[in-house]
Amino acid sequence: MRFFSDNAAAAHPRVIEAIAASNRLDTAYDGDGWSQQLDGVFSELFETEVRALWVTTGTAANCLALAALCPPYGAILCHKDAHIENDEAGAPGFFTGGAKLMLLDGPGAKVAPDAVAAACDRIRKDVHQVQPAALSITNATEYGLAYRSGEVAALGRLAKERGLNFHMDGARLANALVTTGESLADMTWRAGVDALSFGFVKNGGLNAEALIMFRTELADEIAVRRKRAGHLASKGRMLAAQILALLDEDLWLDNARAANAAAQILAQAAPARLAFPVEANEVFLKVTAEESANLRGLGFDFYEWGPGEIRLVTSWDQRGEDVERLASAIARL
Amino acid sequence: MRFFSDNAAAAHPRVIEAIAASNRLDTAYDGDGWSQQLDGVFSELFETEVRALWVTTGTAANCLALAALCPPYGAILCHKDAHIENDEAGAPGFFTGGAKLMLLDGPGAKVAPDAVAAACDRIRKDVHQVQPAALSITNATEYGLAYRSGEVAALGRLAKERGLNFHMDGARLANALVTTGESLADMTWRAGVDALSFGFVKNGGLNAEALIMFRTELADEIAVRRKRAGHLASKGRMLAAQILALLDEDLWLDNARAANAAAQILAQAAPARLAFPVEANEVFLKVTAEESANLRGLGFDFYEWGPGEIRLVTSWDQRGEDVERLASAIARL
Amino acid sequence: MRFFSDNAAAAHPRVIEAIAASNRLDTAYDGDGWSQQLDGVFSELFETEVRALWVTTGTAANCLALAALCPPYGAILCHKDAHIENDEAGAPGFFTGGAKLMLLDGPGAKVAPDAVAAACDRIRKDVHQVQPAALSITNATEYGLAYRSGEVAALGRLAKERGLNFHMDGARLANALVTTGESLADMTWRAGVDALSFGFVKNGGLNAEALIMFRTELADEIAVRRKRAGHLASKGRMLAAQILALLDEDLWLDNARAANAAAQILAQAAPARLAFPVEANEVFLKVTAEESANLRGLGFDFYEWGPGEIRLVTSWDQRGEDVERLASAIARL
Amino acid sequence: MRFFSDNAAAAHPRVIEAIAASNRLDTAYDGDGWSQQLDGVFSELFETEVRALWVTTGTAANCLALAALCPPYGAILCHKDAHIENDEAGAPGFFTGGAKLMLLDGPGAKVAPDAVAAACDRIRKDVHQVQPAALSITNATEYGLAYRSGEVAALGRLAKERGLNFHMDGARLANALVTTGESLADMTWRAGVDALSFGFVKNGGLNAEALIMFRTELADEIAVRRKRAGHLASKGRMLAAQILALLDEDLWLDNARAANAAAQILAQAAPARLAFPVEANEVFLKVTAEESANLRGLGFDFYEWGPGEIRLVTSWDQRGEDVERLASAIARL
Repeated sequence: MRFFSDNAAAAHPRVIEAIAASNRLDTAYDGDGWSQQLDGVFSELFETEVRALWVTTGTAANCLALAALCPPYGAILCHKDAHIENDEAGAPGFFTGGAKLMLLDGPGAKVAPDAVAAACDRIRKDVHQVQPAALSITNATEYGLAYRSGEVAALGRLAKERGLNFHMDGARLANALVTTGESLADMTWRAGVDALSFGFVKNGGLNAEALIMFRTELADEIAVRRKRAGHLASKGRMLAAQILALLDEDLWLDNARAANAAAQILAQAAPARLAFPVEANEVFLKVTAEESANLRGLGFDFYEWGPGEIRLVTSWDQRGEDVERLASAIARL
Repeated sequence: MRFFSDNAAAAHPRVIEAIAASNRLDTAYDGDGWSQQLDGVFSELFETEVRALWVTTGTAANCLALAALCPPYGAILCHKDAHIENDEAGAPGFFTGGAKLMLLDGPGAKVAPDAVAAACDRIRKDVHQVQPAALSITNATEYGLAYRSGEVAALGRLAKERGLNFHMDGARLANALVTTGESLADMTWRAGVDALSFGFVKNGGLNAEALIMFRTELADEIAVRRKRAGHLASKGRMLAAQILALLDEDLWLDNARAANAAAQILAQAAPARLAFPVEANEVFLKVTAEESANLRGLGFDFYEWGPGEIRLVTSWDQRGEDVERLASAIARL
Repeated sequence: MRFFSDNAAAAHPRVIEAIAASNRLDTAYDGDGWSQQLDGVFSELFETEVRALWVTTGTAANCLALAALCPPYGAILCHKDAHIENDEAGAPGFFTGGAKLMLLDGPGAKVAPDAVAAACDRIRKDVHQVQPAALSITNATEYGLAYRSGEVAALGRLAKERGLNFHMDGARLANALVTTGESLADMTWRAGVDALSFGFVKNGGLNAEALIMFRTELADEIAVRRKRAGHLASKGRMLAAQILALLDEDLWLDNARAANAAAQILAQAAPARLAFPVEANEVFLKVTAEESANLRGLGFDFYEWGPGEIRLVTSWDQRGEDVERLASAIARL
Repeated sequence: MRFFSDNAAAAHPRVIEAIAASNRLDTAYDGDGWSQQLDGVFSELFETEVRALWVTTGTAANCLALAALCPPYGAILCHKDAHIENDEAGAPGFFTGGAKLMLLDGPGAKVAPDAVAAACDRIRKDVHQVQPAALSITNATEYGLAYRSGEVAALGRLAKERGLNFHMDGARLANALVTTGESLADMTWRAGVDALSFGFVKNGGLNAEALIMFRTELADEIAVRRKRAGHLASKGRMLAAQILALLDEDLWLDNARAANAAAQILAQAAPARLAFPVEANEVFLKVTAEESANLRGLGFDFYEWGPGEIRLVTSWDQRGEDVERLASAIARL
């Protein structure tokens, strides 16, 4: 019974069907009928004109965006627990040509405007110090907290004032939207976001993510960088098709709802043990080493987050009975 | 009737089936049961111990290998018509951190030892000139010529003498093997190749290529570079599964044979028009603009290679009747 | 008797005096009184507002300019014999983050508009091929030819049409100006040049070159890149002071005149042996191996340019008697 | 009366004389008679065989070393107040091709073995996290503390255990040696240091620093990187000559002694106000904004380090009377 990572879950059957259905000769790269729909479909979804490119990993989505938003000699402000800092093998440095991550603190991996302002103020405006050029936040955060659109908008205003481009890592954006009930538009471009890594792989996709440019003039450069990074798949239709399948009839939102609901069941089993409020599909629990071993002994798999803490992640396809069993086990600890 | 590119062809049905069959929860990234088989399966295939990593594009395979084989301040010798020079958006410069491609000439995009030696000799041994550090060849070449293992071995010996690491871009290696009847081992590591981009996408795969390291000590570094370049898919089992499906019962060789056979039919329709011998699945024909328009008028799609020349590429799934029709049309020109 | 390179000549005594005179406490980096004069002095010299930064080598000047004029994913058009291609250890790739040099041919290392246009036309406008973004020429060329301002202007117009930024490597610009009698303004910004590496080291300087930005908005970025490349000397006054000393009373032009005059004496000794017209301070002579050995035997030092060719370079301080002796020796061959 | 930075001080007259004396034709780059002495002179000084290269800035020395000691995909451990983190415009990212600085804490900008071990332990040994590859310390530190050779040796042993290459930024190494009375050998290679940025510019030099490789096999690569970064001056003799002048008769130690002595006078004027022990030529004083203004009103110039703290830096040529006046003024605060 796996609560290890949504990364490892199966793809939704409709995604596999879409891949199979798209398996026929068409124009290579992104000239095919599926890829060519993305700009239109996402523009409708976001209620504004956007450009959308498929990529195959979240790391690629994040770092292609950051390379367009930050020069090699600039800095990207992000939380010290951000995925781009901790889990991408230095990909931001690679894609940008050596830009620096400037780390912010804050509870639950959430970035607050004060922290951004303070970091900018610490930097002398001279050529000796790397100047902040971009801000990147993750929504939902790496600890499963969801930004509200008002919070994002406050960061967006500050970014504009300070001359920072604004990127959102939305690997689990669907989970945040389901929790907050906010619209895609409010959560992103209306709040000042310039580019979004729109995650599908953790949410029922197989290997396709979307990179959304609200500043559409960035798209041509990013398309070149995508090819240059070896990310322009020749049979790109299989990537576009799975994204379209997930968007169809809001399957992506259904998937996120299912994962979030499972997380809520776990959260309610032991509210006093929660390290953070549960606003997405991740549950961080305070447990002793013995308790952790106990849960493993019962057949549950999960991530040891550190001494005295475990991370449980639920997926769109988490079996209800497994969730119930784990909730009971937690309650009994 | 498409003779435009093998890049655009459908994947083989057994590949799609393998992806569907692998669509269940397993360890993320390359910890799953499929990915874990690759080292063993390829070691058997190559009759020596190798390390094998999946990647999603040929550009990624080539450039991850080159980044491990050439320092940022070195040069990679390759043909002026090589894919890495002309069709990868400068990816070698990106992955290596600024290494230089040093271009060689030679008929049919084939690299001869003399050209390699002459290029090395032209470079002064000082810090002002970029020193050659690697050699990269494409087999079959961009013009559809197949190296024989003896030719590769001659280059391999020279590379060793000159201190050059040796990479082979095998996007169409299957086609070359089928034509020459040589073994994988003879064509690669026994001939001195250090790393091979083993192509599957042009040969019935969907989006998986294999990067084979004959110098196994390179694999750990390349695995890090793969992640850093955003190429470590979280559900990597879908990539490994399709490679395993193509290797199973030599499907990859059957596919290459089918594509090559179709190319031969076209070649024999007008031997006098051939710009190069046809040794893989590419046919370069000398035709006038009028003749080219004529063929298009009959419903055939292909690439205008330049004034007076067209490129026809056949795929594993090219329909026999289309091939016959095109052959007749060519013969009638 | 050295005719090996103007790189190795002594600095002019007034340069050494200026360094000594500037050796007192002042603001560090380029905040001192000498450095602060550069923008004004060069603006007057060029008859337009420019920004001017000192750097310590021509390679740094060239490559800092190119990094601002060409994105990492672009190409720089230059002659195949250009210094940036042959003698800078791949520095353009390093400073730009992997941009590509796209090589042009043409007699005497001179770039003609036709060659530029043809190179651009060869590139497909897609994401697979690296798109030209900049043009770099050397004046005087690596073979000692001087562009006329009309020639530069023709390239400048073409660059503008094709969307190329335009850089001039002026390591020997003084020599070209002296020969052509043209003005700095006509030869550079009025002809469409965006940034100029203005050489002093080969012309009586010790270790200071100037980087001139005619598009003044580039200067702030280049100033950051200069620091980031470790080129912001803390006692920069010694660099500014020597440039000011060379500009004072046109010492730089006097130096170039002296070097050019010496070259003319050599050229006239054997006009039939000249590989190129002599329009700067470099003389390329066709001589046999035996003749070359003969000259060496007489105590002359020079560069063997290749089989059957030698390069003689004169400096601002070449002794008249040495020049006469070499001219006689050449005439006697 | 300047106590702002040792960066801005005049060069020692013997340095200027040496530059003037070296101003004659010799082999270009580092083939001249002065440059060719460096390996030997430094080998004697360090009591072991070393390779030594001149460069023109401390940033270049540090980052050329780091580029050879850390791969693009690795991390360099350093103090969060290190010069390479705060004052080099991201040069480590540029020279290494995107390596990451992993920041350590510790009083007085000093790195302790525990902090290094803890940072290493925090990193999972997988491809998702950037792995530490090098350690860099500054001696004397950015707050003017001197490591003892035993402290360096403890770090050196740990570095070896953890597989970290070890770099020392010795911009003020002379000051540390004078304070501690330790030998160059004990403080560096005997303590496990692989490469040293040996500072001269802050200590009476004009624009020459030395990069010392104790692992001599690194030197050829670094020499190439130096050229590629535009740091191979063509009249390098002026750089070598000034280093030789400073080494001659231990002028470099005399200079450091003078600067340290001046700092001690300031320190003793108000021991209770010292933010850190004074072990080099930097004095950090706790003063109110009013007191700071008071000192400025008396004609003293210095750096406001932050609220309630100022930095006073003394140079080799600080005038005794200025020092006495400032000491009195501080005592009177």
